[in-house]
Amino acid sequence: MAIAEVSIIPLGTKTPSVSEYVARTCRVLQEDKNIKYELTSMGTIIEGDLEEVLRVIKNMHEATFDEDIMRVVTTVKIDDRRDKTVSMKGKLESVLKKLER
Amino acid sequence: MAIAEVSIIPLGTKTPSVSEYVARTCRVLQEDKNIKYELTSMGTIIEGDLEEVLRVIKNMHEATFDEDIMRVVTTVKIDDRRDKTVSMKGKLESVLKKLER
Amino acid sequence: MAIAEVSIIPLGTKTPSVSEYVARTCRVLQEDKNIKYELTSMGTIIEGDLEEVLRVIKNMHEATFDEDIMRVVTTVKIDDRRDKTVSMKGKLESVLKKLER
Amino acid sequence: MAIAEVSIIPLGTKTPSVSEYVARTCRVLQEDKNIKYELTSMGTIIEGDLEEVLRVIKNMHEATFDEDIMRVVTTVKIDDRRDKTVSMKGKLESVLKKLER
Repeated sequence: MAIAEVSIIPLGTKTPSVSEYVARTCRVLQEDKNIKYELTSMGTIIEGDLEEVLRVIKNMHEATFDEDIMRVVTTVKIDDRRDKTVSMKGKLESVLKKLER
Repeated sequence: MAIAEVSIIPLGTKTPSVSEYVARTCRVLQEDKNIKYELTSMGTIIEGDLEEVLRVIKNMHEATFDEDIMRVVTTVKIDDRRDKTVSMKGKLESVLKKLER
Repeated sequence: MAIAEVSIIPLGTKTPSVSEYVARTCRVLQEDKNIKYELTSMGTIIEGDLEEVLRVIKNMHEATFDEDIMRVVTTVKIDDRRDKTVSMKGKLESVLKKLER
Repeated sequence: MAIAEVSIIPLGTKTPSVSEYVARTCRVLQEDKNIKYELTSMGTIIEGDLEEVLRVIKNMHEATFDEDIMRVVTTVKIDDRRDKTVSMKGKLESVLKKLER
C-alpha cells in the first residue's frame, strides 16, 4: 500500500480560482472503489495499491483538461513503505503519539 | 495571508521511520502563536503572513538537524492569493460546495 | 508529449549520501529507448508520452528498493501542454529568448 | 550552503504560456550577486547560504504578482547537507561518477 498526495493546477484559467477543477478531480476519485482518499486545503491524499494510485492520478490529471484548459501541471508525492503496512490514519497517529509524550 | 504545505525528510536515519522528526517540527509550530497549522498524513499545512510562514518553515527545517542527521530535504508549496482573503478552511469549503451540486 | 521531473529519496540509508540510488534510477532510464531525459543536481527531467513517462517513473521508483531500503519517497511534477508540442529544449529556449530582450 | 529548486506558477494567466513570468523571476536572480543559479526546463536551481536562498525565492515569488496575476503557487525543494560542502556541480558529478562504473 502506498500513500500519495496529488495537487493539480490548470494553467490559463482566466480567474485565480481553480476549485471547480479540484472538484472535478474529486469526482474521479469518488467513482473509484479501490482507493481511499482525503481532501486537504493543499491537495488530495490517496491510499491504495501503487499501480492503482498511479492510474487514478492519471485519470484525475486527464479530467482537468477541457476546451479551455490546454495545460495542466500535476505534482505527486508518493510515500511507499514496505517494511510494514501503512495508512493515512496510521501515519498521523504515529506522529500524534510522539507529540503526546 | 498565504497557505503553505511543508514536508521535511531527514536523510540517513538508519530506520525507515521519521515520525519522531515530524513530531519535532510540530513542536516548533506549537510554540508559534502567529501561525495556524494542520497536520496531515503527508505534511503540515500552515496559514499565516508569508514572511512569518517562511520564517517558521526555516525553524522547522533547522530543528530536524541533530548529531545524527546531517542532511535534510524540505519541500514547501506556497499558495498565495491576493484578490481575496483565503484560509485553509475556506479553500476546502469552496471545493466541497462545488462537489455538492 | 509531457515533460516530468522526478526526484526519488530512499529513507533509512545510514549515510546522508544517496547518489548511488540516483545512479540506479538513471540506469533504468538508459535502458528505455522511448524516453529522453536530462539529469540535474536536483532531479531527473523526462520527456515523452505521458503513459510511458509514468511507467518509467514507476520503474525508477521500484528500482530504489532493495534489502536495505524499505521506504522510498518519490516526487513527480508533470507539465503537460496540449495546445502545442513542447520539449525540454523548447521550454528553456522560450524563457532565454524573453531574457535577451 | 544549500541547494534549492524553485518553480513558480502564476494562476489566471489567460493563456497556457508562463515563460514571460519565468523570465521575470530570472531577472531577480541576475541582480543577486551572492547566489549561483541554473535554469532548467522544469524550474530554477539555486545554490547559496540557506538564509539568502530563501530571501531570493521570496523576491522571485513577489515579482510574479502584477495587476493581472493575483495568485501564485510556488514550490521549493531545499537540499541542505551539512557533513560536507555541496554544490550543484558536485552533486551531479557524484552521480555521473557512479554511472561510469
